[in-house]
Amino acid sequence: MSKEITSREKDYSQWYNDLIIKGELADYSAVKGCMVIKPYGFALWENMRDTLDKMFKDTGHVNAYFPLLIPKSFLSKEAAHVEGFAKECAVVTHYRLKNDPNGGGVIVDPDAKLEEELIIRPTSETIIWSTYKDWIQSYRDLPLLINQWCNIVRWEMRTRLFLRTTEFLWQEGHTAHASREEAVEEAEKMLRVYADFVENWMAVPVIRGVKTANERFAGAVDTYCIEAMMQDGKALQAGTSHFLGQNFAKAFDVKFLSKENQQEYVWATSWGMTTRLIGALVMVHSDDQGLILPPKIAPVQVVIVPIYKGDEQKEQIDGKVKEIMNQLKELGIRVKYDDNDNARPGWKFAEYEMKGVPVRLAIGARDLEKNVVEVARRDTKEKRVIDLNGIAPYIHGLLTEIQGYMFNKAKGYMDDHITNADSWEEFEKLLDGKGGFIAAHWDGTPATEEAIKEKTKATIRCVPLDNAQENGKCILTGKPSTQRVLFARAY
Amino acid sequence: MSKEITSREKDYSQWYNDLIIKGELADYSAVKGCMVIKPYGFALWENMRDTLDKMFKDTGHVNAYFPLLIPKSFLSKEAAHVEGFAKECAVVTHYRLKNDPNGGGVIVDPDAKLEEELIIRPTSETIIWSTYKDWIQSYRDLPLLINQWCNIVRWEMRTRLFLRTTEFLWQEGHTAHASREEAVEEAEKMLRVYADFVENWMAVPVIRGVKTANERFAGAVDTYCIEAMMQDGKALQAGTSHFLGQNFAKAFDVKFLSKENQQEYVWATSWGMTTRLIGALVMVHSDDQGLILPPKIAPVQVVIVPIYKGDEQKEQIDGKVKEIMNQLKELGIRVKYDDNDNARPGWKFAEYEMKGVPVRLAIGARDLEKNVVEVARRDTKEKRVIDLNGIAPYIHGLLTEIQGYMFNKAKGYMDDHITNADSWEEFEKLLDGKGGFIAAHWDGTPATEEAIKEKTKATIRCVPLDNAQENGKCILTGKPSTQRVLFARAY
Repeated sequence: MSKEITSREKDYSQWYNDLIIKGELADYSAVKGCMVIKPYGFALWENMRDTLDKMFKDTGHVNAYFPLLIPKSFLSKEAAHVEGFAKECAVVTHYRLKNDPNGGGVIVDPDAKLEEELIIRPTSETIIWSTYKDWIQSYRDLPLLINQWCNIVRWEMRTRLFLRTTEFLWQEGHTAHASREEAVEEAEKMLRVYADFVENWMAVPVIRGVKTANERFAGAVDTYCIEAMMQDGKALQAGTSHFLGQNFAKAFDVKFLSKENQQEYVWATSWGMTTRLIGALVMVHSDDQGLILPPKIAPVQVVIVPIYKGDEQKEQIDGKVKEIMNQLKELGIRVKYDDNDNARPGWKFAEYEMKGVPVRLAIGARDLEKNVVEVARRDTKEKRVIDLNGIAPYIHGLLTEIQGYMFNKAKGYMDDHITNADSWEEFEKLLDGKGGFIAAHWDGTPATEEAIKEKTKATIRCVPLDNAQENGKCILTGKPSTQRVLFARAY
Repeated sequence: MSKEITSREKDYSQWYNDLIIKGELADYSAVKGCMVIKPYGFALWENMRDTLDKMFKDTGHVNAYFPLLIPKSFLSKEAAHVEGFAKECAVVTHYRLKNDPNGGGVIVDPDAKLEEELIIRPTSETIIWSTYKDWIQSYRDLPLLINQWCNIVRWEMRTRLFLRTTEFLWQEGHTAHASREEAVEEAEKMLRVYADFVENWMAVPVIRGVKTANERFAGAVDTYCIEAMMQDGKALQAGTSHFLGQNFAKAFDVKFLSKENQQEYVWATSWGMTTRLIGALVMVHSDDQGLILPPKIAPVQVVIVPIYKGDEQKEQIDGKVKEIMNQLKELGIRVKYDDNDNARPGWKFAEYEMKGVPVRLAIGARDLEKNVVEVARRDTKEKRVIDLNGIAPYIHGLLTEIQGYMFNKAKGYMDDHITNADSWEEFEKLLDGKGGFIAAHWDGTPATEEAIKEKTKATIRCVPLDNAQENGKCILTGKPSTQRVLFARAY
């Protein structure tokens, strides 16, 4: 089984697919648009999920679970929401199969047609707010700070592993508040949680911003977002947090008795992060040899490969490795010993490079004599021979160093790829050349944004938070503008 | 809001529903047959899931994720399987909604009809074995020891919260092996893991056994099971582990090259445990005052309620409680301080009794003076005044004691409800009277089993593992039999 990877230069898109498939993160499935998340990819997702879940709980949220299926009519209750999601809904129309009386195998039983069709959740605002109506009577019932981890289906015509799949996994927070201020504060807080997670665990630097009306979540008053920059100069939305105002409370008639004894509509937020983020992780850090995973979320942080001839050498190495592993585990390091004798060390080296394991130790009989081990970093490919005395704290420090190095490298790339454009020519030239985020003036109208998108496929990724205010002219229309916004082509 | 619970004696079924709703484990949803798992219920499920997940990983399994949607034709590939599940499949036929041109709101877009309908997984053998075909070539690829946590849909006409819902959460293990022996060993091993979990974490005693052909999983060669006994004398299947033989390998043409260089079909197991188990937990332990949760999986193990007049007393108590909480947390105890001043202590006592929190501490100004606290057990309702010196180890020991007491109590009940019946009259009398498991001789034929079920609604729950062999006569037909099997009416 050859594991060669297409280079980024040759075919960026194929490079990405090769990494996902050959790095064993995911696989295509028999169902169009749906993927299988393989054990290695799922272990990565578990680390991401568990970290985020702890951050949610530390900020006062609890988990719950709401139904997969939503009555079709619920979707229509919020006008913008149905407009945004109707076109990609998987629809359940029947609840039974039967044997074809004409011998054609199993068919849908026409007698088992649902009175009202159900859709598979494309997001859960509607089913959750229909439930919140029963849970909220007074200000004493607020805030509700609930999250759920689940699967989502949005029908996609053109799919990419992790980046755009018909089914994906995510978490969705849905909170209910007594005041606008508290809801806005919650939406902003969760954006900070997301940025913290993505930057400090995934080592992916992001721009924090607000979406324009065109790019807003269907049903939101404001959509906050974090945007990341891939190695091909395209942006990727890494997480969104929505201030929903009273839109869903009005759609589902959810009111509460305020402290002042008034019936008022409840204020809402929702926020989500998906398995799509794994696509970002891959594209930000990896190289032509394979994945490069940040230590904090890597399923395996350290792999140890023995190099030996004969059973005697193997036994000696096994004994020493056992010691090393115990020392590493005591420091909470996830370590794997690969002494599978079906594969040669060189093959294993390539395999763990492919899989992005941050640190590899190779240990042979000679090393044992000298009480040393060869330590190889996946990110820089640097190799060093290190004394076995104090190896555990050394590795511990090295993992921290790698985490920081990966973030700084990606941050340097992103910062280098935020470029001002002051004319349409400059704008187009940047888009087709260097790529990245282009900071340009825009007249603030949806029509202009739409026109730029049609001409160039670039969208406004966000208006950065705490954006500098400066007078300028819209790059397309020349009309006055008070700030630059960030354009990019995006995944 | 009244929180009175219907007594078991008055209406067992209503008692159960009251516990689920008023104990805030779950709620009905707007979608027929689907429930909402509320935060308290979900925290319980998280503890169950995390414990089981660790047990799976400790026995060498890894997690992955396979698609929610399964092509209809896949189901037909295994004859018994389709027979078992066709009647309860939710079917996706379309992938888009659109605005009704006649103004009738949102309708299913007839142009977006799927060429082949998709079903929502009722279990994942078919989609997983269609994938394993690509993953397995040689004996080196075996065993595959994969589990997934996900949601399942099986259309149900008559639903009960947790016990029978159209959508439920579960885990499903799907393993692939090179030999029959290894697969059988895996199926038996996972049954032991389930029994260990249910008995030692949930404090629910079970009978380990094998299902008869009538009660076997659709597509299995053998179904191992654990069966629990509820307080109304009805049985509940708490987990199943299936030896699937080569049925699915043949259906999806999954072969491997053996060490002997032969192409052979792969051997399989699958095993699952669901949110249904929460229903069993509730029915085994609870009483007319509410839930009683075993300490090992209770979301809150200890609740502390302050009893005070005025801010000064409150402050003093707060200070002492903070100390106690730190001591308890250091021992890994999940503790909550409820100093909400909207509710009186008596209301809180009833509330935490309802919610089944194993231990309650009440502390007032007088207690502070004496350096004591009142400790109340939920299971026995026993109260004791305990010195605050050494309170943490006392509570720690008490939680262990409660866990053991709950198991022993339930075990005593179950053992008391396994009764021999040697005639049809005895059998019917026991069923309509004492209930429980009835150990009786059966002639070993599916026809007799079916006849008994039709007459009495009792089914053979299992043939216990290591069942004593003795000669006897079938209670219905009088034909010879070599062992007793366990009958019961069941959920």
